[in-house]
Amino acid sequence: MCGNTVIWLNGVAATALPLPDRGVEFGDGLFETLLVNGTEPLYSELHLARFQAGCRALMFPDCSVAVQQQLRQAALASAARGWRWSALRVTVTRGAGPRGYAPPEPADPRIIITATRLEETTAHMPDPARLGLASVRWPAQPLLAGLKHLNRLENVLAAREYREAGYDEAVMLDQQGNPISVVAANFFAVCDGQLLTPPLHGCGIAGTRRDLVMRRWAPALGLAVREEFMTVDQLESAQEVFYSNSLLGLRPVASFGKRTWNEHPVCAAMYGLYRDELQ
Amino acid sequence: MCGNTVIWLNGVAATALPLPDRGVEFGDGLFETLLVNGTEPLYSELHLARFQAGCRALMFPDCSVAVQQQLRQAALASAARGWRWSALRVTVTRGAGPRGYAPPEPADPRIIITATRLEETTAHMPDPARLGLASVRWPAQPLLAGLKHLNRLENVLAAREYREAGYDEAVMLDQQGNPISVVAANFFAVCDGQLLTPPLHGCGIAGTRRDLVMRRWAPALGLAVREEFMTVDQLESAQEVFYSNSLLGLRPVASFGKRTWNEHPVCAAMYGLYRDELQ
Repeated sequence: MCGNTVIWLNGVAATALPLPDRGVEFGDGLFETLLVNGTEPLYSELHLARFQAGCRALMFPDCSVAVQQQLRQAALASAARGWRWSALRVTVTRGAGPRGYAPPEPADPRIIITATRLEETTAHMPDPARLGLASVRWPAQPLLAGLKHLNRLENVLAAREYREAGYDEAVMLDQQGNPISVVAANFFAVCDGQLLTPPLHGCGIAGTRRDLVMRRWAPALGLAVREEFMTVDQLESAQEVFYSNSLLGLRPVASFGKRTWNEHPVCAAMYGLYRDELQ
Repeated sequence: MCGNTVIWLNGVAATALPLPDRGVEFGDGLFETLLVNGTEPLYSELHLARFQAGCRALMFPDCSVAVQQQLRQAALASAARGWRWSALRVTVTRGAGPRGYAPPEPADPRIIITATRLEETTAHMPDPARLGLASVRWPAQPLLAGLKHLNRLENVLAAREYREAGYDEAVMLDQQGNPISVVAANFFAVCDGQLLTPPLHGCGIAGTRRDLVMRRWAPALGLAVREEFMTVDQLESAQEVFYSNSLLGLRPVASFGKRTWNEHPVCAAMYGLYRDELQ
């Protein structure tokens, strides 16, 4: 814990997690990362809906009321420290349990919230990103696809790889070689005046901002969105590419493979809608 | 921590894990479970070899010397408490790191060892197990196949399922529907006087006792072993089925689907070899 990070466990300031804990034993848990504007965790209903879907899939007791309450407390505490913008990561593990894979019944989940101070990031659209192509692929697992659970070794290894190679982000493929996402965000390609984004029924994480692009911001710009696989070549051939996550909102893509993009009109227009919502 | 469990962190008795820790954030780590006879962690060279392979895949610094030393200390401490048999689970996480997927470089891994007292288990072959068929399938991920990492949600969910259904264990399939393993062990089928066991290049965990069956115990009984996929029907049609892991050694299978097995001559003979090695 340092001056720009605070951690709470079950609503109480903490520096450690009691052992044993199934989060560290098996990645047995879920997480969400929320952007906080002053005292307000943004789009928290979308984060909580995904969290509840995760609770059902992992057969956790639904602790979304406690999560919501502790997120609000954490946001208030962050604002009280004078942080204008912050990130809240909430991690919920299945808690303690006996030796072995079989989970305790009932489980007594633990809620860990980490608040991190952020620089002002929403006034201007982020700089266009240079994308690599990750050699690490998503695992194929329809049962857990879309959820934000704690089994994230592929993302860790792919993030390490693009950092080493000097990229800002990297496209991750599924086991069949279809682009699915970047490491920490969902992407959209502008093709023939439509937005394309890969379906997530086999792998990937269904981002909250992906949902907003599809249901709100693209329609507001008169753009149709289709969930559809594309090849790496098709992605390179897009008129424009951008990606979305909770902390960045939207970020345009400057380059991928041999392709570069100098203009990002769709992302810029959409970023305007996003920024307006935050005012 | 209770009377039959002790936990150490980096060699020091502990009740909690400092936060943040990438093990709980992303399942960013590895584990091994060793059977301890008195003061001796059994077959530790096999566990350490798999652990080192995991360190390479996850790009952890090789901390196998520290792991080995702390396992020895933990085994001595368990024996000093009067425990004749115990299980040591060693969990190694990438330790602390900043927000986000990208791992810190260099990482400073943390070593957590949990010792649990066991009842005498090796004098007699375990009772034959009733196997279910898990609805939860292994994720397809060749990059991490065979390794014992901390991303184990499938095993958790499959274990919950067979417990609820009243089975002792369950066969887990890959995404194509091939039987790969049971939830916490590798299996072998006796077919036409040979042993068959599924290959693990796409998913699954390469067990230490699987290795001993293949390289030592089956040859000692004059049995050939082939790594080969089989269907659920073929598994049901086997002359005999048994499974292997570090704590059980070998366990015969009593039933799977509509099939029952009353005799387990291969497993019994192999269990004799195993028990002799422990004397």
